[in-house]
Amino acid sequence: VNGEFEGLFAGLFARGGVASEVGDRALLQAMLDFEVALAQTLADAALIPAAAAREIAAAADVAALDVGKLGRSTGEHGTPVPGLVAGLRSRLSRQAADGVHVGATSQDALDTGLMLVARRALVPLLHDLDAAADACAALAERHRRSLQAGRTLLQQAVPVTFGLKAAGWLAGLDAATAGLAEVRDRDLALALGGAAGTLAAYGDRGLEIVSALAARLELAEPDRPWHTVRLAPARLACALGMALGVTAKIAGDVILLAQTEVAEVAVADGGGSSAMPHKRNPVGAVAVVACARRGPGLVATILASMPQEHERAAGSWQAEWEPLLDLLRLTGSAAAALRELLVGLTVDPEKMKENLGLTRGLVMSESVAGALAESLGRARAQDLVGEAAQHVGNRHASLREALLDLPEVTAALGPQRLEQALAPRQYLGVVDQLIDRALIAHGGMPKQSTEEESR
Amino acid sequence: VNGEFEGLFAGLFARGGVASEVGDRALLQAMLDFEVALAQTLADAALIPAAAAREIAAAADVAALDVGKLGRSTGEHGTPVPGLVAGLRSRLSRQAADGVHVGATSQDALDTGLMLVARRALVPLLHDLDAAADACAALAERHRRSLQAGRTLLQQAVPVTFGLKAAGWLAGLDAATAGLAEVRDRDLALALGGAAGTLAAYGDRGLEIVSALAARLELAEPDRPWHTVRLAPARLACALGMALGVTAKIAGDVILLAQTEVAEVAVADGGGSSAMPHKRNPVGAVAVVACARRGPGLVATILASMPQEHERAAGSWQAEWEPLLDLLRLTGSAAAALRELLVGLTVDPEKMKENLGLTRGLVMSESVAGALAESLGRARAQDLVGEAAQHVGNRHASLREALLDLPEVTAALGPQRLEQALAPRQYLGVVDQLIDRALIAHGGMPKQSTEEESR
Amino acid sequence: VNGEFEGLFAGLFARGGVASEVGDRALLQAMLDFEVALAQTLADAALIPAAAAREIAAAADVAALDVGKLGRSTGEHGTPVPGLVAGLRSRLSRQAADGVHVGATSQDALDTGLMLVARRALVPLLHDLDAAADACAALAERHRRSLQAGRTLLQQAVPVTFGLKAAGWLAGLDAATAGLAEVRDRDLALALGGAAGTLAAYGDRGLEIVSALAARLELAEPDRPWHTVRLAPARLACALGMALGVTAKIAGDVILLAQTEVAEVAVADGGGSSAMPHKRNPVGAVAVVACARRGPGLVATILASMPQEHERAAGSWQAEWEPLLDLLRLTGSAAAALRELLVGLTVDPEKMKENLGLTRGLVMSESVAGALAESLGRARAQDLVGEAAQHVGNRHASLREALLDLPEVTAALGPQRLEQALAPRQYLGVVDQLIDRALIAHGGMPKQSTEEESR
Amino acid sequence: VNGEFEGLFAGLFARGGVASEVGDRALLQAMLDFEVALAQTLADAALIPAAAAREIAAAADVAALDVGKLGRSTGEHGTPVPGLVAGLRSRLSRQAADGVHVGATSQDALDTGLMLVARRALVPLLHDLDAAADACAALAERHRRSLQAGRTLLQQAVPVTFGLKAAGWLAGLDAATAGLAEVRDRDLALALGGAAGTLAAYGDRGLEIVSALAARLELAEPDRPWHTVRLAPARLACALGMALGVTAKIAGDVILLAQTEVAEVAVADGGGSSAMPHKRNPVGAVAVVACARRGPGLVATILASMPQEHERAAGSWQAEWEPLLDLLRLTGSAAAALRELLVGLTVDPEKMKENLGLTRGLVMSESVAGALAESLGRARAQDLVGEAAQHVGNRHASLREALLDLPEVTAALGPQRLEQALAPRQYLGVVDQLIDRALIAHGGMPKQSTEEESR
Repeated sequence: VNGEFEGLFAGLFARGGVASEVGDRALLQAMLDFEVALAQTLADAALIPAAAAREIAAAADVAALDVGKLGRSTGEHGTPVPGLVAGLRSRLSRQAADGVHVGATSQDALDTGLMLVARRALVPLLHDLDAAADACAALAERHRRSLQAGRTLLQQAVPVTFGLKAAGWLAGLDAATAGLAEVRDRDLALALGGAAGTLAAYGDRGLEIVSALAARLELAEPDRPWHTVRLAPARLACALGMALGVTAKIAGDVILLAQTEVAEVAVADGGGSSAMPHKRNPVGAVAVVACARRGPGLVATILASMPQEHERAAGSWQAEWEPLLDLLRLTGSAAAALRELLVGLTVDPEKMKENLGLTRGLVMSESVAGALAESLGRARAQDLVGEAAQHVGNRHASLREALLDLPEVTAALGPQRLEQALAPRQYLGVVDQLIDRALIAHGGMPKQSTEEESR
Repeated sequence: VNGEFEGLFAGLFARGGVASEVGDRALLQAMLDFEVALAQTLADAALIPAAAAREIAAAADVAALDVGKLGRSTGEHGTPVPGLVAGLRSRLSRQAADGVHVGATSQDALDTGLMLVARRALVPLLHDLDAAADACAALAERHRRSLQAGRTLLQQAVPVTFGLKAAGWLAGLDAATAGLAEVRDRDLALALGGAAGTLAAYGDRGLEIVSALAARLELAEPDRPWHTVRLAPARLACALGMALGVTAKIAGDVILLAQTEVAEVAVADGGGSSAMPHKRNPVGAVAVVACARRGPGLVATILASMPQEHERAAGSWQAEWEPLLDLLRLTGSAAAALRELLVGLTVDPEKMKENLGLTRGLVMSESVAGALAESLGRARAQDLVGEAAQHVGNRHASLREALLDLPEVTAALGPQRLEQALAPRQYLGVVDQLIDRALIAHGGMPKQSTEEESR
Repeated sequence: VNGEFEGLFAGLFARGGVASEVGDRALLQAMLDFEVALAQTLADAALIPAAAAREIAAAADVAALDVGKLGRSTGEHGTPVPGLVAGLRSRLSRQAADGVHVGATSQDALDTGLMLVARRALVPLLHDLDAAADACAALAERHRRSLQAGRTLLQQAVPVTFGLKAAGWLAGLDAATAGLAEVRDRDLALALGGAAGTLAAYGDRGLEIVSALAARLELAEPDRPWHTVRLAPARLACALGMALGVTAKIAGDVILLAQTEVAEVAVADGGGSSAMPHKRNPVGAVAVVACARRGPGLVATILASMPQEHERAAGSWQAEWEPLLDLLRLTGSAAAALRELLVGLTVDPEKMKENLGLTRGLVMSESVAGALAESLGRARAQDLVGEAAQHVGNRHASLREALLDLPEVTAALGPQRLEQALAPRQYLGVVDQLIDRALIAHGGMPKQSTEEESR
Repeated sequence: VNGEFEGLFAGLFARGGVASEVGDRALLQAMLDFEVALAQTLADAALIPAAAAREIAAAADVAALDVGKLGRSTGEHGTPVPGLVAGLRSRLSRQAADGVHVGATSQDALDTGLMLVARRALVPLLHDLDAAADACAALAERHRRSLQAGRTLLQQAVPVTFGLKAAGWLAGLDAATAGLAEVRDRDLALALGGAAGTLAAYGDRGLEIVSALAARLELAEPDRPWHTVRLAPARLACALGMALGVTAKIAGDVILLAQTEVAEVAVADGGGSSAMPHKRNPVGAVAVVACARRGPGLVATILASMPQEHERAAGSWQAEWEPLLDLLRLTGSAAAALRELLVGLTVDPEKMKENLGLTRGLVMSESVAGALAESLGRARAQDLVGEAAQHVGNRHASLREALLDLPEVTAALGPQRLEQALAPRQYLGVVDQLIDRALIAHGGMPKQSTEEESR
C-alpha cells in the first residue's frame, strides 16, 4: 500500500481512487513503464538486443526502489531519473544496462511518466464525475416538477424547479467530463526528444521510435518533442481547474440549500458535533469546496510555468510536477466527495414550496407584470405591480390580495388570467425541455445511479 | 475613435487591433446588437410587432450613449444593462419601447455582449498570432541548417539548429491558435435564459427563440442558459492564458539570445537610451513577457469565479468582466508585439557557430560517448569522455585534442569516425523532419510572411 | 476631469475617491512631480542652476501632455518616461532642458511615480475603510445584545449577538487599515538609482541626493536603489489584497444575512428589477465581493514578478504597473462600497431572534450538555442531549420539552438551572468584553459615524 | 523519522530543516501540545482537576496516533480534531477524558496547531535565510571592487561591481527575513474561541484563559477569536511569498551569470549529465526557482480563502491548510538550496572584466556623454557619443578610438578627462557606500559565514 495519500487530511483532499494513482510509487511505476517500453521499442527496431529488453522488463520492479534515496538524489540531479536509471542498471548485466534509457533524457522519462499517471488517474476521476452526473440526472428526473424559488444575488426572483437546477449541474458535469476526456485522448502524449529535442542518438530513426513507443504506451503520438512547449500540461491543468469549478458550483448550491434557515436539502451523514447533535454539517460539500478553492492557484502556477527557456527550463519545468499531481488528486477527491454527496442528498420539496411562499406571492411579480403588459403596456404594468408590491410590504397582504384591490388590474386580467399569472407552475417556461435535453445529452436516466440509490 | 485603449501604457498592453474591440464602446455596441437582434427575432416569431423591431434597430446607436452615466448606473443596478435599456427605450415610441429586452435579463445582454466582443477581438488576435507563426515558419526554413547550441538549464548541451528552435515556436503558436479557434467556434455561445434560466416569458417557445437568435448573432447555439455554469468564459480564459504562455516562451528565448554576451539575434528597432546608444533593448519581447506575466493571475480569477450561486451569482459573475476583457487585450497586444518582433528579427548564424565553439568541443561529448559506446560499452565510453573533458578543462585543450591523447579512444573509433562524432552537423538527428512537420502543419511557407519581410 | 475611471463598470470597480488618483493623468502628474523635485534637489545641491529648476517647475504641466502619444511611445521605449522627458524638455530653454532627469533612469521616474500615486490613493482609501469601520463600531454598540444564531458551515451552532459579529468585522477592518498605513509609512519609498543602481552620475553625492529628494517628495528614504528587489510593490500589493479579503468577508456575511429566507439585514437601496419590485439586491455587497474576487490573482501577478533580472527586468517590472493600479482602484472601490453598505444597513433583531428559534432550542445543546456534564460527566451528558435531540426531531417538540421528559436531566439540573442552560442570553461568554475590546481598539464609538447615521 | 517529507522530489521541494516541521506528525504534535496546554491552563484556573491535566499531558503521545485512521476520519468530521480528541480520551480515565478539549472547538486546535507549526518551521527557515544572507555579505565584501557589466533588459548598460549585486541580494534577504520575523512575533497567535467565538463554555473567564494559554504556548495573545477573520494566515502566506520572490531573484541572477556564454559564476557541484560531463547544471538555483514559481499561486489561494462565512467557513478555511504547509516547506527548501548555492558559488572576476569589454567601450557611453555635457550641453554631448557609437559599430573600433577621431570631443575633454570618463572604475558612483550600508544593516561581515567558507 502506498503511504503518501493516507495523510492527515486524506478524507478531504485524497478521497476516492485518484490519490493512489498520483503518489510517488505510481509515478515511479510510470517512469519504469517508460524505460521498459523504450527498451522494447528499441529492441524491436534492432537498436538494442532483444535479450537486453527482456532483462530490463524483468528487473523493472518498483518495489525494489528506495523512494527516500531517490528523493534525495533529486537534489543533485534536478530530477529523480538519473537515480532511477542508475538503480535499474545496477540490477542488470552490462549488456542490458547499456540498453537502458538509450537516447532519452531525464525530461523524457519524467514527462512521459506524468502523462501516464494522468491517464491512469483519469480513470477513477472520470468514473466519479460520471457517477456524480448520474446522481444529478436522477435528481433532475425525480424533481422535474418540484417547485423552488429561483434565486439571483441570493434573493428570490422567479420560480424554477429543483429538477432544473439539478439538470444544470448535470450539464456542467458532463461538459467538464467531456473536456477532460478530450485532453486525455488528444493531449496526453509521449515525451521523447533526447538531450535537446533532436532525437540525435537515434540517427535518422527518431520519428519511427517515437511513433512505436507512443503506440506501445497507449499515449498520443506527439508531432514533435515538447520539452519547452508546454501545452500538454497546461491543457490538462485547465481542464482539471474547470472540472473543479463545476464541482464547487454544485457543492456551493448544496451548502446554501442546506442552511438551517433554508433547509431544502440535507446531507446523508453530516459530520456532527457531539456537543451540537442537531447539526448536519455538509462535510462532503465542504470537502468539494475546499478542494476547488485550490484549483485556480494551481492552474495559475502551471500557466506561469509555460515560458520555458530554450531546450530545457531552469526551474519552470520542475515547478509543474507537484501542482499537476495536486490538481489530479484534488479534482479526484472533489469528484468522489461530490458523488457521495449527491447520491446521499435528501430533498424536501415541501420546504421548497414553503420557501417559495415567503414573499407572499411577490416572486410572481414578473409573471403578473408580463400578463398585464399585454393589454396595458410594459410601463403601466410595472407601475401597477410596483404599487401592489408596496401594499404587500406595508400591509403584510399577499400579492393576490393587493392586486385584487387594484381595479385596473382586475379589469385588465380577469380572475382566471390573474390566477394563472400568480401560479408558479404556470411560469416555468421550457423547464421540462431543458431537463430533457440534459438527460438526453447525458445518455438518459442511468441504471447505475438508480441502483446505487436503491442500495 | 474609442479613447480607453489609448492609455499611458498602450504601446505595451494595448498593441494591435484587439484593444479597440474590447473597449467600453465595443461592449456597448455588442450589447445593443443583442437587443436589436432579440427584437428582430421576437418580431419574426410574431411576439412583438415588426415595426417595433425596425424602430429599435434604427435607434440603437452607440454614439447616443453616455458611458459615464451608464458606468455610474452600474453602481445602482449591478450591471450597465438596465441603464442601457432605459436609455434605448427613452428614444422610442411606447410600442417599440415595450419590445425592447423582452424576456431577457441583464445577464443575458451582458454575457452575450462579452461573447460577441470576444468573437470580434479574436479576428485581429488570430490574425496576429498567425502572422507571428508565418514569421517563425520563414525563420525555420531559412535557418534550417544554422547550427546553434541547444541549451538546457541555460547550459550548452548538444547542437541544434536555429531552424529547429523556430519550428518549435511555430508549432506552439499554431497549437495555441487552434485552441482559440476551437473556443471561438464551440464555446462563444449566445446567453439567453430570462430571470432565472427558464425562459418563462416566452411561454413554451423559449428554445425556438434561443436557436433563432443565436443564428442571427452568429454565435454558437447553447444547449441551455448558462448563467451560473461558467464553462464558456473559463474556456476562453484558459485558451487565452495558454496563448500568452506560448508567446512568452518565444519572447523569452529572444531576450536570452539577444543578450550582449550571446548576441545570436538582434531586434529591429530596439528601444535605445539616448545616453546608452549601444543598447538595442528588446522592447517588443519585453512587451510580450509583460503581457504574458499577467495571464495566470487573470485566468485564476476567472476560474475562481466559476462557483456561482444558484441562478445568478452575487459577485463572482461581475468579477469576470474586466479580467476577461483584460485577457483579450493583453493576448492581442502580445500577439501584435510578437509578430513585429519576429518579422524584424536579425539572426546571426556566425555568432551562433562561434558560441557553439565556446566549450571547445565539449558540446559534442554525448555524441562521442555514443560513438565510443558502440564498441566499448556505455560505462567505459562515458569514463573516457569524462577523462577527456577533464583534460579540456585543465589544459585548455579542445575535446578533439584531448581525445586524440587517449589511445583507447583512437583505437575504438579511428580518425574518420572520430571526426564524424565531433561534427555538430552529424549529430542533428531528425531536425530536418521536425522542421518539415511544423511547416507542413502550418500550411507550408506562407506567402504573406515572405512578402512582409521583403518590404 | 480624467476620463479613464469613468468607464462602463465604474459603479462597481471605480467607486469612491481612489479611481481618480490612479488614472493616467494622476500617474503622469506624479512622474512630473518627481522630475520637478529632482531638479529642485539638484539645484539645492548646486548640481544644476537654480534658474533651471525654476523653469522646469513652471513648465511641468500635466495638461500639456498628450496621453495618447505618450502611450504609443511606450511601445518604442518600454516606458512612457523618455517621451515624458522629451516633451518636457521641448518646452524649456536649453539650459533648463539640460537640467531635466539628470542622473535618473526611466525606472526611477516610473517607480517613484507609482509610489506617489499609491500614497495619494491611500488617502481616500484609508478614509473609506475607516468610515466603514466606524459603521461597524456603531453596529457593534447598538446590537451588542441582539441575539443571533452563530453559524458554522452555514448551520446554526450556538448563539452569538449581531454586535459581536460587527465587532469582528470592525477588528478585521482596523487590522487591514493598520497594515496599509504601515506600508504607506515604511515601504512607499523614493526610487532613485540611475541606469544600474550606482547613482554614478552624481559622483559621490548620490546618497545625499536620495535623502534630500525623498524628504522633498515626502516618501520614505530607501536604503538603496530597489530596481530589482521588489519588496515595496509586493508589500503594497499584499496589504491591499488582505484589505480586499476583509471587505469581502463582511460583504459575504451581509449577502448571506440578506437572503430572502434569512432576512436578518436589508440593504438601503437594493438595486431592484423593475419586473421584480420585491427584490432588494445587495448591489453594494456584490460590488465588494466582485472587487475582492480579483485581488488574489493580481497579488499573485505582483509576487510572480518579483524575480527581476540583474539591474532591470525584461518584462517582470513592466508587468507590475497595471495590476498595482488595478489593486488600488479595486480596493478603493470595495472600501467605498462597503462604507455605503454598512452605513445604510437595516438590521432586524426580531428576525434574528425568530431564526434563532428555528431549531426549537437545539441551538442550546452545547450549553445544556455543559451544564449536565458538571454532575454527570461529559459522556453521559452528551448522550442525554443526543437522546433529547432525537425526540425534538421525531416529535417536533422543543428541546425544553424533550429534556423535561428525561428524569435524569431534571434530576441533575433542577428547573432553574435548566432554564438558565436553555437561555441564549446566558450562554454568550465574553461577548461584551470582545465588543468593548474592538471598540476601544478602534478609538471608541466615533462621532463621524454617529453623525452620518443621523443624517 | 517522519516519512512524508521524504518524497520523490524531496531534494528540490523539501530541502533543509523545514520539511520535517510541517509534516503530518509535526502538526499532530502541535495539536496535542494545544490540548495539553489547554488542560494545564484550565487546571491552573481550577476549571478542571490538576490530576486530569497531568494525566492528559502524560497520555498525549503522538507516536500512539494512527495517521491513516485520523486522515480518514477527516472525511467524516471535516477536520482530524474530533478523531484526535476521541483517541486521546480513549486512553484516559473518565475524569481526565472530561478535561480534554473543554470549551474549545476543532478550529481552535487546528488553527493553533498550524500557528505552532509555523513558529517551529520558521526556526530552520530563518536560519537558512540568514546563512544565505551571510554568504551574500561575504560576496559583497570580497567582490566590492570586482567590475561587472550592469545589465538592464539583459543588455549591458553601465558598469557595476559584483559586490554591489551581492549587496542588493543581501538587502533583499534581510528584508524578507525581517518580514517573516515580524509575522512570527506579531501574527502567530493562539486561536481559542469555542464553537462560535464567544468562549461561552468558560463563562466570564474566557479572556483570562486565552491570555494564560497564549503565554503557555508562547504564541502571541490574540485580541479576539479569529475563526473567520483570517489575517494571521494571510500575513504569514504573504511574507513567505515575498521571501520566495527574493530567493528567486537571486537564483535567477545566478542562472544567468552561469550561462555558458556568460560564465561569470559557477556552481559548486552542478548536477552533471554523465553523457555531458562539461555541464555544470545550476541545480540548486533551479530548485530555488522551482520552489518560488509556486509561491504566487499558493499565496493567491490563501488570500482567496479570506472571505469566510459567518462564524466558521464551509470550505475556505479547510482550503488554507495544505497550501500554508506547502508554502512553509517550499520557502524552507528554497532557503536551504539558496544557502548552499551561495556558499558554494565560484566567482570569476576576470571573466566579468572580459565581458565588460564586449561592447568595446560602449558600456561607458553614459559616462562619456555626461563628461561632454558639462561643456557642450546634454544634446550635443549625446549626438557626439551617438556618432562615435556608430563608428564603433561600423568600423569595429573601440569607443576610445572613435572618440579620439572626433576633434570636438578631444577639445572638450582633453586626454586625461577622456580616460577618466572611459574608466569603468571611475563611474561607480556610491557603490562602496551602498555595500557598506547593506553590510552594516546585516550586522557586519558575519563570523559564521567566514567560517563556513573556510571549511
